[in-house]
Amino acid sequence: MADGVRISLADKLAMFSDHWAPRLIETVDDYEIKLVKLQGDFVWHSHAQADELFLVLTGRLRMDFRDRQVDVGAGEIIVVPRGVEHKPFAREQCEILLLERSRTANTGDGPPNERTRVPETL
Amino acid sequence: MADGVRISLADKLAMFSDHWAPRLIETVDDYEIKLVKLQGDFVWHSHAQADELFLVLTGRLRMDFRDRQVDVGAGEIIVVPRGVEHKPFAREQCEILLLERSRTANTGDGPPNERTRVPETL
Repeated sequence: MADGVRISLADKLAMFSDHWAPRLIETVDDYEIKLVKLQGDFVWHSHAQADELFLVLTGRLRMDFRDRQVDVGAGEIIVVPRGVEHKPFAREQCEILLLERSRTANTGDGPPNERTRVPETL
Repeated sequence: MADGVRISLADKLAMFSDHWAPRLIETVDDYEIKLVKLQGDFVWHSHAQADELFLVLTGRLRMDFRDRQVDVGAGEIIVVPRGVEHKPFAREQCEILLLERSRTANTGDGPPNERTRVPETL
């Protein structure tokens, strides 16, 4: 990690097909660069101490907040502010690059649930 | 910044045309997401305390290290490890998304020089 090699996002995305299971591909200091494929609905959650960046690589992401929805297409980013409840949704498969502090749980600050995943390193 | 709005990278890239002058488009905690256009050669430098991520959006980046060169194309990333001397180069214009800790100088840890830029916020 952080060893100055070229990483192809497409090559890494071709290595898995399951949804809602982030893969760790790189680190920047104590931050993780992850890839994840989304389809359907996730769970409401928040991260009290961590902003979270989503960069849409393919498809369309709908980020639900309690008071609004934001549609995010390929080549667009959204940063979910720390402490704000959110729920990602994608009608069709959507491929995302995630950036957030290491050890930020995908399902937020609550106890682990059936959607909680520890990222596998690709 | 970090306020849950959608940001189009293409729209932001259309707002400037100069080279080697990063623009700040978002923050994630104490990290900055910047866009920059490269063409030609930069200066050798390093960041003792900061890894630095380059995501190539368009064109081709050649990252020179003292002992090797790495070609990075669109859809590929490279993380330059902290403390490692590097020099970005692009034969033709190349558009990049940068991620690094806030206040990391584009020309590294030495005194400012003629290529040093404080990122303007877009």
